[in-house]
Amino acid sequence: MIAELVTTGSELLLGQIVNTNAAYLAQELNKIGVDVCFQTTVGDNRERMKEVLSHALTRADIVITSGGLGPTRGDITKEVSAEVMGRTMALNEKCAERLKKYFARVGREMTENNLRQAMIPEGAHVFVNHAGTAPGVALEEKGKLLVNLPGPPPEMKDMFRRSLAPYLAEKSGVRTIILSRVLHTFGIGESMLETKLDDLILAQKNPTLALLVRPTGVIIRITAKAADEETARLLIEPAEKEIRARLGEFVYAIDDETMEEVVGRELKSRGLSVATAESCTGGLVASRLTDVAGSSEYVKGGVVSYTDEVKAEVLGVSRDLLAREGAVSGAVARAMAEGVRQKLGTDLGVSTTGLAGPGGGTEGTPVGTVFVAIAGSEGTQAEKYLFTGKRGQIKFRASQAALAMLRGYIKRYEQ
Amino acid sequence: MIAELVTTGSELLLGQIVNTNAAYLAQELNKIGVDVCFQTTVGDNRERMKEVLSHALTRADIVITSGGLGPTRGDITKEVSAEVMGRTMALNEKCAERLKKYFARVGREMTENNLRQAMIPEGAHVFVNHAGTAPGVALEEKGKLLVNLPGPPPEMKDMFRRSLAPYLAEKSGVRTIILSRVLHTFGIGESMLETKLDDLILAQKNPTLALLVRPTGVIIRITAKAADEETARLLIEPAEKEIRARLGEFVYAIDDETMEEVVGRELKSRGLSVATAESCTGGLVASRLTDVAGSSEYVKGGVVSYTDEVKAEVLGVSRDLLAREGAVSGAVARAMAEGVRQKLGTDLGVSTTGLAGPGGGTEGTPVGTVFVAIAGSEGTQAEKYLFTGKRGQIKFRASQAALAMLRGYIKRYEQ
Repeated sequence: MIAELVTTGSELLLGQIVNTNAAYLAQELNKIGVDVCFQTTVGDNRERMKEVLSHALTRADIVITSGGLGPTRGDITKEVSAEVMGRTMALNEKCAERLKKYFARVGREMTENNLRQAMIPEGAHVFVNHAGTAPGVALEEKGKLLVNLPGPPPEMKDMFRRSLAPYLAEKSGVRTIILSRVLHTFGIGESMLETKLDDLILAQKNPTLALLVRPTGVIIRITAKAADEETARLLIEPAEKEIRARLGEFVYAIDDETMEEVVGRELKSRGLSVATAESCTGGLVASRLTDVAGSSEYVKGGVVSYTDEVKAEVLGVSRDLLAREGAVSGAVARAMAEGVRQKLGTDLGVSTTGLAGPGGGTEGTPVGTVFVAIAGSEGTQAEKYLFTGKRGQIKFRASQAALAMLRGYIKRYEQ
Repeated sequence: MIAELVTTGSELLLGQIVNTNAAYLAQELNKIGVDVCFQTTVGDNRERMKEVLSHALTRADIVITSGGLGPTRGDITKEVSAEVMGRTMALNEKCAERLKKYFARVGREMTENNLRQAMIPEGAHVFVNHAGTAPGVALEEKGKLLVNLPGPPPEMKDMFRRSLAPYLAEKSGVRTIILSRVLHTFGIGESMLETKLDDLILAQKNPTLALLVRPTGVIIRITAKAADEETARLLIEPAEKEIRARLGEFVYAIDDETMEEVVGRELKSRGLSVATAESCTGGLVASRLTDVAGSSEYVKGGVVSYTDEVKAEVLGVSRDLLAREGAVSGAVARAMAEGVRQKLGTDLGVSTTGLAGPGGGTEGTPVGTVFVAIAGSEGTQAEKYLFTGKRGQIKFRASQAALAMLRGYIKRYEQ
């Protein structure tokens, strides 16, 4: 089955946003054995969109659009789709009900144009939008399938996973599937990874290996093609085992798992609590820890100490130490971690102090210098890092290093 | 002049890489007055690429490809382009010379297949590649222009800037440029905005108006076409003025400015300091405030109080109040903001307390309920919000609301 993706929206045509929807849909469709052979982008222009959709239906079995399902006059994808499939639009009571409920729930006034989102092509299959207001639709005609998905990535992805993927899988009775396993690493560079995995990368066939640099660190993608998931998994397993054997602790997570989720799981399984004391990361470590659902079970809280005064007054870092060593030092990082651990009465304390820049760098302490410390019943441990990049990147890398150090420290405790 | 971008390569079709080339080219072409009306992506498949290029030439005056100019057998863009334009390929001596020089310079052996890059369609205009080995070409036939650019972004961009942009400008005798002004709003929905701006949107011609939903809120893009930047600016000004008059404080920033930058500027210009007390946002408000370079001038720090204990012990929120009102309440939000302001000795305190979910919701306090409070010499102010979405979205929206409320409060102080 051949598919064409049609992403709509002037902001794409003008290049004001990058087309991540096309990449996501292509990747996910390939996983379920649907070949994406064409991707087209067109603006919110009736004639051009009509031409694009009609042409797409001549060369593809499945045409999937994203964008243009909103409540405004500029949102025309559903209407144009109905037109090329020879359907008329009608108000869908169920959709209208859901919209009214939605606005009632969020306590916002529902304006007339919102009802446009409840206008559905006759005989269309409706996909409920669990992340927003615009429903998706699927239209079938003479063996061709035309699907409209919303444009906002969270809504589009949620609808694809919940509704469209199973809907297509059922229709296509797919034979080959593609399965990927992603290994997330931290603390090891791309070239060092390549050196360690050189022979595997050269020998790769099925599964294939790919090294990709991400803000969180380098990831390794193992991808297998097979008739079914079980067979694909059996192809991936030995490769993953071998890579893990070579990389050890550098691998901290798999697939969609994040560093904060891994740390959270490790804390939870050991019944440990944690508190943060942040200078250069400015609350990012605490924010990432609390991005995880259920984190209130192990995160008691934290202190953002952006001034020496707060480091001394709230965290109890001695003013002598601050004066002697300077705020950006291993000694102060230790004192901050110990201070917050004591102040909040947690099992563990994690701290960061450094220079995120762009200003403030010196000969001895250049921008990007960051000290991270972990305090716990096993003693206090501090490390010095030197990160490159812009302020935001340095902040993020420092938070990643802090969470990675925390992960390492936790392993000293029994589960 | 209408242009279509054709990006080629299986890695795009498979979604393994995001199509940044299309965004770059669209943006740059628009700047020089070339309307990009279609973007198509196709793999390295002879038949399909042929179909795509032929069809593109029926609906566009200029077709620009990127990708598939490499030395391998899989690189077929140039050949297929020559075929659809009815040209034959021939070895271009100059290109061959340049290739030999290149390999001599980098001291690498030149393999046979490298010479394929010197094969050029007859009568083509050649663009020298200053960043790599693959030359670009332009083919003209019956008023249609077909251009092949290399795929690697550095080579493509360099060739566009040096060669293609001036080449097109000269051909089209272009006189128009496009200028955009983005107005960022918060606290008002897309449909309510459209209702307020309905007549302007209907009457739009030049400049045009577009409403786009972003995680930060809805943005309004005003885009003008004119012979020069000054004229475009004069077209945008009155439209911006009118929109601002209708939306007032809902507009908080322009163009690339962020809420945290705006708040930072307002604090700095008034010499005010701020501290954060965060429950449900878990440090995100502090992290965003400190994403701004120079924020150490006005951010003293903050407290992440994820437990009642920390709210009481560190922020001094009375245990009676916590028991009586519950942690997620306006009264506790007020006490948190006042507590951190006093504790850290700042001019202002901002607090958040709520339910980010997914768990913990009740009939009376559903997931997404968030209280934000601001404390300062002008008294304490609290607001209740109800946000939808996943945990991460609720956290972000709460942080945006907190910064927006802070912005509003700051305006009470003289500059």
